[in-house]
Amino acid sequence: MTDEMPFTGEPVDSHEAIMRATFYALQEHGYAGLSIQRIADEADLSKSTFYHHFDGKDDLLLSFLEFILEEFDRVFQLERTGDPEADLKTFFGIVLGAYDFCEEIPAEEEFLEAYVELRAQAVRNPEYRAKFTETDRRFADRIAALVEEGVEKGVFADVDPDRTAQFLMSALDGITLRNATRNDDAMPAMRDAIDDYIRNRLLAENAE
Amino acid sequence: MTDEMPFTGEPVDSHEAIMRATFYALQEHGYAGLSIQRIADEADLSKSTFYHHFDGKDDLLLSFLEFILEEFDRVFQLERTGDPEADLKTFFGIVLGAYDFCEEIPAEEEFLEAYVELRAQAVRNPEYRAKFTETDRRFADRIAALVEEGVEKGVFADVDPDRTAQFLMSALDGITLRNATRNDDAMPAMRDAIDDYIRNRLLAENAE
Repeated sequence: MTDEMPFTGEPVDSHEAIMRATFYALQEHGYAGLSIQRIADEADLSKSTFYHHFDGKDDLLLSFLEFILEEFDRVFQLERTGDPEADLKTFFGIVLGAYDFCEEIPAEEEFLEAYVELRAQAVRNPEYRAKFTETDRRFADRIAALVEEGVEKGVFADVDPDRTAQFLMSALDGITLRNATRNDDAMPAMRDAIDDYIRNRLLAENAE
Repeated sequence: MTDEMPFTGEPVDSHEAIMRATFYALQEHGYAGLSIQRIADEADLSKSTFYHHFDGKDDLLLSFLEFILEEFDRVFQLERTGDPEADLKTFFGIVLGAYDFCEEIPAEEEFLEAYVELRAQAVRNPEYRAKFTETDRRFADRIAALVEEGVEKGVFADVDPDRTAQFLMSALDGITLRNATRNDDAMPAMRDAIDDYIRNRLLAENAE
């Protein structure tokens, strides 16, 4: 994890201010309730300022998606320290909020909720689909490279790196989706389940 | 899997006709674009007919969610034949469309897309959250009971049934979410990954 979660410092320019206002308007009204007017109200800017920056609501929301995905890339970085087991656990710990320091990150839950709402738009929106497909692939490639490193070093069992990466990313997405849309807190059980998978399926000493 | 997928026969009454029209309007316009007018157009019914059945759009959409979740329950039944390995594989095969006969089910993909769009609404809507929490628990309990049966019979390794069920359901939700929101077809790799998990983590002969 780098520096800080999105939207925690002061916005650096009007583009970031608009992105932040969109984030808060999304939290307040949901994707279906978003409008330029509501985002402008949130940002304390006039609607004409928006139309100076963007062609309209769809253009603004596509920019917002790009912004959120870049933030994802920045926040959920995969560190490579040469210890693939530790690196994988660190990555999952960050995404699943397994560490105490994550409680200090106020925006993480809302950030993942925004991800779920935006991702669901990709069911109908081909531009969103293209963005998520690209982002998925980038994350999966990184995880696959880490798994491959572990297999080569003999730390991980002889698994297929790409398939394992797809599976882990799917499990993460499912955990994120479920956690953002339930009343109960299933996260501890899901963290245990991911740990169990790493320990019993991935680690060479246990798996084979 | 029972009889047939939803929306494949003739609707049995006006309630089902409205549910079907909502399903098609959702497919055409997305959740954010749903309106009573559009659903009425789809159903070839007057708006006043809708207000006879429902208090308004929110009431209609909550009924639609209940309808879809009941259909989920009906379609994705978990058969219990006394062979937990086969039963688990059958269940995943149905949800992941692993069998040839699934190609004959025209509505399955759209059905899962509707699930993703409705589920994302639960981020903001407490009534939706309550419904999904309840449905999740019902499915997870069934999977856990099946895993427990497998552990007791010595077919599965000595895993924690509840944790395993939560993990499998999360992976399924993640696969469903990703598959509904990407351009490429990641499904074959994900089916392989689920098979790999069952074979190498769950089956007693391999896992321990």
